[in-house]
Amino acid sequence: MTGRGRKKGEAIPQGVVGRLPVYFRYLSELAALGVDKVSSAQLGEALDFTAAQIRSDLSYFGSFGQQGYGYNVAELLQQVRQILGMNRRHSLVLVGAGNIGKAIGSYEWFRAEGFVIEAIFDVDPHLIGNIHGGCAIRPVSELKQYLLKRPSDVGIIATPKDAAQEVCDVFAECGIKGIWNFSPAQLDVPDDVIVENIHLTDSLLRLAFRLNEREQRSGF
Amino acid sequence: MTGRGRKKGEAIPQGVVGRLPVYFRYLSELAALGVDKVSSAQLGEALDFTAAQIRSDLSYFGSFGQQGYGYNVAELLQQVRQILGMNRRHSLVLVGAGNIGKAIGSYEWFRAEGFVIEAIFDVDPHLIGNIHGGCAIRPVSELKQYLLKRPSDVGIIATPKDAAQEVCDVFAECGIKGIWNFSPAQLDVPDDVIVENIHLTDSLLRLAFRLNEREQRSGF
Repeated sequence: MTGRGRKKGEAIPQGVVGRLPVYFRYLSELAALGVDKVSSAQLGEALDFTAAQIRSDLSYFGSFGQQGYGYNVAELLQQVRQILGMNRRHSLVLVGAGNIGKAIGSYEWFRAEGFVIEAIFDVDPHLIGNIHGGCAIRPVSELKQYLLKRPSDVGIIATPKDAAQEVCDVFAECGIKGIWNFSPAQLDVPDDVIVENIHLTDSLLRLAFRLNEREQRSGF
Repeated sequence: MTGRGRKKGEAIPQGVVGRLPVYFRYLSELAALGVDKVSSAQLGEALDFTAAQIRSDLSYFGSFGQQGYGYNVAELLQQVRQILGMNRRHSLVLVGAGNIGKAIGSYEWFRAEGFVIEAIFDVDPHLIGNIHGGCAIRPVSELKQYLLKRPSDVGIIATPKDAAQEVCDVFAECGIKGIWNFSPAQLDVPDDVIVENIHLTDSLLRLAFRLNEREQRSGF
């Protein structure tokens, strides 16, 4: 196996970035099961990538394996964590304490991996003061004042569509550089703010499209 | 503007498929606002695609616009709906009535667009019989027997990771061809079953990676 390594400052291609979390999840599982070594062929089979793809992806991490031996799981996992920026604590704020917000707020994995939701905000006066995932829900009218005192890394938007841009604007104004958007809104942000969207409807529509396409091809 | 049209049976490239739901969302908005016409330049600006990209994508729908006039919003929307397979009713079953399951079950948009959740299942005896989104929650032990009587198009998995593969196997065995998976599990399915994943952790990790990469580049 040959590797290329990554030159300092060289960007990792988007396709590889998209696969990093998949590697992370699978390597975490192997580590939890006490597995020490894994070959590119085994990784490929488990993840539905070709072994050549795996070797090419992992070469970006400067991880080359050993012929006939494979990769050290713990080492590889550590490298993936570092590339993903997981070796530090991230502070998050969440706006919107409906079902989606509650689901996010109670996802144990986030806190365990250092993504800590520090505060939750909602517009509904009936929810204010309720405790969720260890946070008291605060009125969204206090969002700006909170963020100016306690800068956060990531802002999560779990509001209805109509409220999303306004929340996003407050986030950007208060120096938040990463927005995780669960609303169906297409957000306008300054150039230095990164948005990662979870668009449920888009996902369902892609599934519907692929089902429809397959049915038409098989002549139903 | 020139177009190429789509030959019968010609597959739409994956990149275009990924953008279809984005077109759908934006065109729906324009239609709701009563907008009649839209140019490729306007579409491009709103969606952050180039006008050339827009024209190329829309040519797959056999929609060519008119020089200096643009596209008819209602017509284009109708074409996008048809390509996405939205002009029919889809029946869905949902397994897992936790926060994520509840969020999905109460998402009004799905039903309005013909994606109807017909039944909800959970393993927790305390939840059985509760009504959610108009469905009584049923014991998951009855899933197979239900599906054999009432075939469904799409099965939604909103269970913890450890239960996901088992639910997936029941879906596949009962003839479900589309699975919408919200669990972090990497599902094994027969070749004729399509899986669309919403992996929350992957999405957050991609955001963390991009934040980390940007900070390193700007020398923090």
